[in-house]
Amino acid sequence: MNLLQQTIEKIENLDQETMIKARERVDNLIKPPKSLGRLEDLAVQLAGITKTVKPVVDNKAIIVMAADHGVYEEGVAPNPQAITAIQTLNFPKGTTGVCALSRMSGAKIVTVDIGIKEDIPNDAGVIIRKIKYGTDNMAKGPAMTREEAIKALEVGIEIANEEIKKGVNLLGTGEMGIGNTTASTAILAVLGNYPPEDITGRGAGLSSEGIQHKAKVIEKAIHLNNPNPTDGIDVLAKVGGLEIGGMAGVMLGAAANRVPVVVDGYIATAAALIAATIEPKAKEYFIASHASAEIGGKKASELLGIKPILYMDMCLGEGSGAALTFPIVEAACDMMKYMITFQEASMTI
Amino acid sequence: MNLLQQTIEKIENLDQETMIKARERVDNLIKPPKSLGRLEDLAVQLAGITKTVKPVVDNKAIIVMAADHGVYEEGVAPNPQAITAIQTLNFPKGTTGVCALSRMSGAKIVTVDIGIKEDIPNDAGVIIRKIKYGTDNMAKGPAMTREEAIKALEVGIEIANEEIKKGVNLLGTGEMGIGNTTASTAILAVLGNYPPEDITGRGAGLSSEGIQHKAKVIEKAIHLNNPNPTDGIDVLAKVGGLEIGGMAGVMLGAAANRVPVVVDGYIATAAALIAATIEPKAKEYFIASHASAEIGGKKASELLGIKPILYMDMCLGEGSGAALTFPIVEAACDMMKYMITFQEASMTI
Repeated sequence: MNLLQQTIEKIENLDQETMIKARERVDNLIKPPKSLGRLEDLAVQLAGITKTVKPVVDNKAIIVMAADHGVYEEGVAPNPQAITAIQTLNFPKGTTGVCALSRMSGAKIVTVDIGIKEDIPNDAGVIIRKIKYGTDNMAKGPAMTREEAIKALEVGIEIANEEIKKGVNLLGTGEMGIGNTTASTAILAVLGNYPPEDITGRGAGLSSEGIQHKAKVIEKAIHLNNPNPTDGIDVLAKVGGLEIGGMAGVMLGAAANRVPVVVDGYIATAAALIAATIEPKAKEYFIASHASAEIGGKKASELLGIKPILYMDMCLGEGSGAALTFPIVEAACDMMKYMITFQEASMTI
Repeated sequence: MNLLQQTIEKIENLDQETMIKARERVDNLIKPPKSLGRLEDLAVQLAGITKTVKPVVDNKAIIVMAADHGVYEEGVAPNPQAITAIQTLNFPKGTTGVCALSRMSGAKIVTVDIGIKEDIPNDAGVIIRKIKYGTDNMAKGPAMTREEAIKALEVGIEIANEEIKKGVNLLGTGEMGIGNTTASTAILAVLGNYPPEDITGRGAGLSSEGIQHKAKVIEKAIHLNNPNPTDGIDVLAKVGGLEIGGMAGVMLGAAANRVPVVVDGYIATAAALIAATIEPKAKEYFIASHASAEIGGKKASELLGIKPILYMDMCLGEGSGAALTFPIVEAACDMMKYMITFQEASMTI
């Protein structure tokens, strides 16, 4: 049995018994009932994930998957493709958006080359797990083979397993890949059965004409490859991306290890949709972060069924929204640990 | 000239020159233009507040003002009034909601008795600046005299000044006061000219009948006292609260010292409306936090003109939403300090 199958079989539902105990504690904390709103739900979810009423997240990591996209040659992105490689080298230097935004929560950034078109030096601080030199052009055929898609998922699982083995107890996913809003939109169109023109956005800065063209390329790719919306691996292989597969793998790996994983914005939500199509129980381990400003962001969140916490009009990717959400997750744990109950306060209302 | 007048005269507009330089830096950071959305706007605001392109917030405090409300005797709140005093004693112990939620950002909590109905022991870790033993019942006359309202504002200013002198460079406001959604709703009704029945909510857990009664009490208080909506001090005196005055004072003090101040939820927004009515320039120093689940919360934010960042369905008060927002403010500063520009990366797009 391969790693993917093993991982899927390991994923269980959240622990209901612990969640009931956690809800009891939440309801007895010294505050009006329900007054901490979604922070209370988050705490109960974390309890169900970790099987403890007072969960701890003191070791955080964001795994950034980087890869290129063959569909770039169709003119779907405004920036040079070489940016993927150039920017990937900036993650270990700590100079990109997600690196800056992770500092206040003390999260480390783990950068993985899962399919960049160029070679990345071995000593650059990037984990090299390259499956191929970018996907193939999905407007001309499948982005990758089914075997490559499974391999991408397994790389994500392996990286998640390694980090969790090192003690990480809160994961986030991020990405770098010029052209990856095109693949994400294709995934969303297939899984949600949306017409591409309704959900295609500007990505890193397309014009209105550029957006129309991008939507047509997506439509063409879907028509040509005809992915099966009930088969997440098939969708990933035909119209996805290597970094999207890696992210979905991280999410499956997190769920299999009972570790919460913060989904970032648009690309990460597409990856989460792949993961949840492969194994629906995985979704119980996902934590929403920000509402992406990318046009399909809202539909993607609705389809996945997780409501964003932060409304910052952001669309950078890299895991930047996950980074901003980490302190909120920590706060939910602190609520369980440091707030006292009415009984503990000898207070009656 | 009294402290309030001195403070108001000290409040200047944000520094445009620094903001232009900050916007230039933001636009040159290695990311697609505008892709960090409201975090970018926040960084520019912080630059304008602090007159530095790379602002620092490494010393954070939430000032919690606690007081009682004479209008409590009209039956507008579901909990015993004694909770104000009991819960106030829990802040220095670190066991309340805002205390727990502040831990991850390292913010300290400064608790002030500005008008609790009972005496608070001197050694409880609470700063005693009691103006009176709770406000008078606004359904029978003004909640306080104009002199008492000014004194409440000045207590807030003094506490802000003291904390800033000790090195605090990011402030948040919180409160404890059974009955204070009634006073906040009255303030909102007067300043926004809203019918009380449209904006009166359940507070700490009223029934539908209780809400109707509360709205009628608010209507009666406004009709009886006839506060002048262009005079923030008059509104505060007639239908406000001592802790609301203290919070408004903290906001004015923060603005006068060019220190950013995070507005919490419903009560804090009412206080911010008072502060902004007294001196509109103060608003430029305010940072929104969460969207309160209290029914008038949305209208209060709209009237103040600041859009919440977090959507957590919270309505605890205490400054809990401000606490959750502190890491976001820190992240905006980190973006300016640790992300590099295209020039610094020798990268061209």
